[in-house]
Amino acid sequence: MFYLIGLGLGDPTDITVKGLEIVKRCARVYLEMYTSILGCPQEELEAFYGRPLLLADRDLVEQGADEILAGAGEEDVALLVVGDPFGATTHTDFILRAKEKKVPYKVIHNASIMNAIGCCGLQLYKFGETVSIPYWDETWKPDSFYDKIRLNRLNNMHTLCLLDIKVKEPTPESLTRRRKEYQPPRFMTVAEAAQQIMTIVDKKDALERNTILNEMSLCVGLARVGHDSQRIVVNTLRKMTQTDLGAPLHSLVIPAKEIHPLETEFLQQYTTIKLEDYNH
Amino acid sequence: MFYLIGLGLGDPTDITVKGLEIVKRCARVYLEMYTSILGCPQEELEAFYGRPLLLADRDLVEQGADEILAGAGEEDVALLVVGDPFGATTHTDFILRAKEKKVPYKVIHNASIMNAIGCCGLQLYKFGETVSIPYWDETWKPDSFYDKIRLNRLNNMHTLCLLDIKVKEPTPESLTRRRKEYQPPRFMTVAEAAQQIMTIVDKKDALERNTILNEMSLCVGLARVGHDSQRIVVNTLRKMTQTDLGAPLHSLVIPAKEIHPLETEFLQQYTTIKLEDYNH
Repeated sequence: MFYLIGLGLGDPTDITVKGLEIVKRCARVYLEMYTSILGCPQEELEAFYGRPLLLADRDLVEQGADEILAGAGEEDVALLVVGDPFGATTHTDFILRAKEKKVPYKVIHNASIMNAIGCCGLQLYKFGETVSIPYWDETWKPDSFYDKIRLNRLNNMHTLCLLDIKVKEPTPESLTRRRKEYQPPRFMTVAEAAQQIMTIVDKKDALERNTILNEMSLCVGLARVGHDSQRIVVNTLRKMTQTDLGAPLHSLVIPAKEIHPLETEFLQQYTTIKLEDYNH
Repeated sequence: MFYLIGLGLGDPTDITVKGLEIVKRCARVYLEMYTSILGCPQEELEAFYGRPLLLADRDLVEQGADEILAGAGEEDVALLVVGDPFGATTHTDFILRAKEKKVPYKVIHNASIMNAIGCCGLQLYKFGETVSIPYWDETWKPDSFYDKIRLNRLNNMHTLCLLDIKVKEPTPESLTRRRKEYQPPRFMTVAEAAQQIMTIVDKKDALERNTILNEMSLCVGLARVGHDSQRIVVNTLRKMTQTDLGAPLHSLVIPAKEIHPLETEFLQQYTTIKLEDYNH
């Protein structure tokens, strides 16, 4: 059997009891480490499970399905992923590869940022489409995520913004070489995300800035959700560009324009702005 | 400390290791049992935890915060909820009550239908606002959820429909009495939900039926997500009204009109309809 096991928000004890039992009895256990990050080093996880883990990088997960699934028809093999197994398209794809090879599979669900984001007090059911904000560089500044935030705002839905993660990215110079060199890992902060959104907003006309989003619009910055060091800050978009929430992972939420009183009361914990009569 | 602990999808071993450690050491542990249902009887949970649980019904959770939080400043008290603690408004409210009383609290996240729904292969980030479909009776047939499905369809987002649960509902006759009598528990099936949606759709004009939703539109019925007996079926709305997925809980998804090829490939497992050239 092939098991795709969600590790939850990244602390070793966030695995479910069911997941842990499976990890202990598997012949091989792979740990996927590039679509998100763990809150602890691999060694700590291995000590907690009492077994070694095989590291699965992007190449192995996206092109090495044969290697990971080898023998999974006869013995138990697991792939561990941070969050829930269906949080990233690449894992859905992996299940299809297992099906193709007629390998029986089972999914062990867990919390992911997609539902844990409710911890800021904004009601989960009112979130619209989720956007991913990619790192810009000098020549590549995609801004299509703004249109989705816009659509959600127009329809009075909250927007969860997932912030870019660059892990094991080849350096541009080594892209064409056989032996790749890798950039140091980078994790987008809420300040960087807010800055990119501000850059887009600054280009819009006054009408758009009045009706959709402007520098005074509220946003919610979250860091290390589910960990003891979790931080949540509510601020204006402008001030969020200067808000330091510390170590990764960060997420940003652009709330709907109309917020329920219960949501307001909850968000008020995280800001000195008087939310009750704030209207952006 | 007051702990709000998510039990995940309802099997005893779906609790996280962190959650289980807390449950074992708490002075009192309450089990909330009306916003969702467990996949096992309370006794099985108590045997697994090796401790008794106090049952928390709607009255106790919504009006008995004092009782549940009593002493939680000095000793550890936990409230267990199916899914993730932030899945239901009532739990967010409960945290605010704890804050009001200056009781320190911690939330232990877990999977909930809000992220586990990804198991059908539709990408989570493409879901719009979630709707709740309430049971209709002879005089009360609210249909505002349709407008949200409509908006999601127009904006090419999937819609997760949470189906009504009636647990410990007073009978209409006993509503005014001091001693309430309760109706037997009811859990809406995907067939019942599809039927109510069909009733609304049948009243719409031809343009609406052509552009938004009609009896040939595809929908995804899910039952007992995350359990060994999990079932997923893709069908037309019309046929879903006659699809029996067995025991609760059920959920229904109305996909966006445009579906990504990877989503189509995944959904194809659950239907005999040839999805590749299906266009509703």
